[in-house]
Amino acid sequence: MSLLAIGTVAFDAIETPFGKTDKILGGAATFIGLAASNFYKDINIVSVVGDDFPEDYIKMLQSHGVNTNGLQVKQGEKTFFWSGKYHNDMNSRDTLDTQLNVLENFDPIIPESYQDCKYLMLGNLAPAVQKTVIERMTNRPKLIVMDTMNFWMDIAMDELKETLKLIDVLSINDEEARQLSGEYSLVKAAQKILTMGPKYLVIKKGEHGALLFHGNEVFFAPALPLEDVFDPTGAGDTFAGGFIGYLAQTDDISFENMKRALIHGSALASFCVEKFGTERLVGLKSEEIDERIQDFIDLVQFDITLENSL
Amino acid sequence: MSLLAIGTVAFDAIETPFGKTDKILGGAATFIGLAASNFYKDINIVSVVGDDFPEDYIKMLQSHGVNTNGLQVKQGEKTFFWSGKYHNDMNSRDTLDTQLNVLENFDPIIPESYQDCKYLMLGNLAPAVQKTVIERMTNRPKLIVMDTMNFWMDIAMDELKETLKLIDVLSINDEEARQLSGEYSLVKAAQKILTMGPKYLVIKKGEHGALLFHGNEVFFAPALPLEDVFDPTGAGDTFAGGFIGYLAQTDDISFENMKRALIHGSALASFCVEKFGTERLVGLKSEEIDERIQDFIDLVQFDITLENSL
Repeated sequence: MSLLAIGTVAFDAIETPFGKTDKILGGAATFIGLAASNFYKDINIVSVVGDDFPEDYIKMLQSHGVNTNGLQVKQGEKTFFWSGKYHNDMNSRDTLDTQLNVLENFDPIIPESYQDCKYLMLGNLAPAVQKTVIERMTNRPKLIVMDTMNFWMDIAMDELKETLKLIDVLSINDEEARQLSGEYSLVKAAQKILTMGPKYLVIKKGEHGALLFHGNEVFFAPALPLEDVFDPTGAGDTFAGGFIGYLAQTDDISFENMKRALIHGSALASFCVEKFGTERLVGLKSEEIDERIQDFIDLVQFDITLENSL
Repeated sequence: MSLLAIGTVAFDAIETPFGKTDKILGGAATFIGLAASNFYKDINIVSVVGDDFPEDYIKMLQSHGVNTNGLQVKQGEKTFFWSGKYHNDMNSRDTLDTQLNVLENFDPIIPESYQDCKYLMLGNLAPAVQKTVIERMTNRPKLIVMDTMNFWMDIAMDELKETLKLIDVLSINDEEARQLSGEYSLVKAAQKILTMGPKYLVIKKGEHGALLFHGNEVFFAPALPLEDVFDPTGAGDTFAGGFIGYLAQTDDISFENMKRALIHGSALASFCVEKFGTERLVGLKSEEIDERIQDFIDLVQFDITLENSL
């Protein structure tokens, strides 16, 4: 079995109150692959870059156990580029530049060697492309997790709704959940979205943690209170990568295990935001992750015996 | 021993997206007393009302175990009145009217029978009045918890800082923590505020839960995801009342027990917002509270053994 992640492999140029970068490594599949690699080693990615993409980045991904056979390199074309500037509160950002480049005509070709996929992570891409990937799998994966964003709700809601019917877990942020459902209350939003296809819904609330909904059950994973959020870019993808990587490692998709997966995803996201781009994720040590997960346990663990009220 | 709560007893007129009320019962001491009464029965309040304040409200408080000997009734004067309108997101509100009335010259007289106070809750009032109450206690209470708001930071920061030196636990919201400390990061804000006097700091984040800081330790109590927040008025005071009521009941001010107290306070606050004003708190049953606390346990409880990362 293997874990397949599709999504962008890209260049980002980022400006935050703490500094700015030139073109650095970014992209959903990059963050997902790096994050998942902390828990699981048979990771395949499907994506596309131009001939301007450094061989060193590809080697770095491979050295983390990410198989790049499905990473198409288009000669004479340029890699997807995004540039953004975060505001002081780090919760909102302006997109300064988006150059689709190779992404414009991306055809997600699945190498034959990827067909043993059991865990499929559909990183943020056009819903029609995400659907194509599902259709190209010979056997339906055990679990399909999907990320998307408000952009597709604005311009491709119908395709998005078609793709939603085919997946198991949807991972979006609070504003996206509100837009998708038309409900302000996240509880009501979740109830509605769970009738659209996904059996599980993760609502990411950034510094306020994440909620997991399934049937009538709900679980909350906090975000770790940090002195500073240095750069939030990729945090959502890192979260998703940690989530599905942990599920693949344990090969257990029960609600109880999804709770643990959510905590593991949150722990990885808390590293991601400490430095620019992928910097903190490259070479991350398992002891560091264990310590961080202990921080999460300490943060929310309490011991109540229900016989206190009068 | 007893629990003493000072704060307003007031009339509120509230407008939310779900409806509006005429003058109903409100005030910090009211919510604190009602909330605390679920866990502890020797509760005294010090406050002031006018002769327009209905005897029925006083009887209702008494029937919940709240001693009103320290509630001054000023003949020929009017009760403090606040009117506000909540926006659609329920996180922000406009004050439509504030009539200080009896509060203008409030002298917090402590009845002799209140001097066995072990747990003192200073509800939101002018910092100088809060300080006077501390000074009028013959013996220093075991624990002094204080609430305040941005209003006093704007107009009475020096008095506020003097009062802060005398207390144990400060309970404020995230924006107030930022204003008091001058730090945007709540972690940095907490570090600074913990040098100002309080040994414990609770930062309330509304629908995003609450953080408890003490030394280098931090604990997070979630808010329960609700279908609708009907009326947030009094939620912060209810939270504080549940918190100190639980501490008084258990007579244990360890950090571990404060975590439990925070969960109990959060549970009571989750009831408060379900209806207008004190409506949901009046006659609240202990079985309902136990069920709600079980919801909190289910919401954040997970079971991780640290041997998962590769």
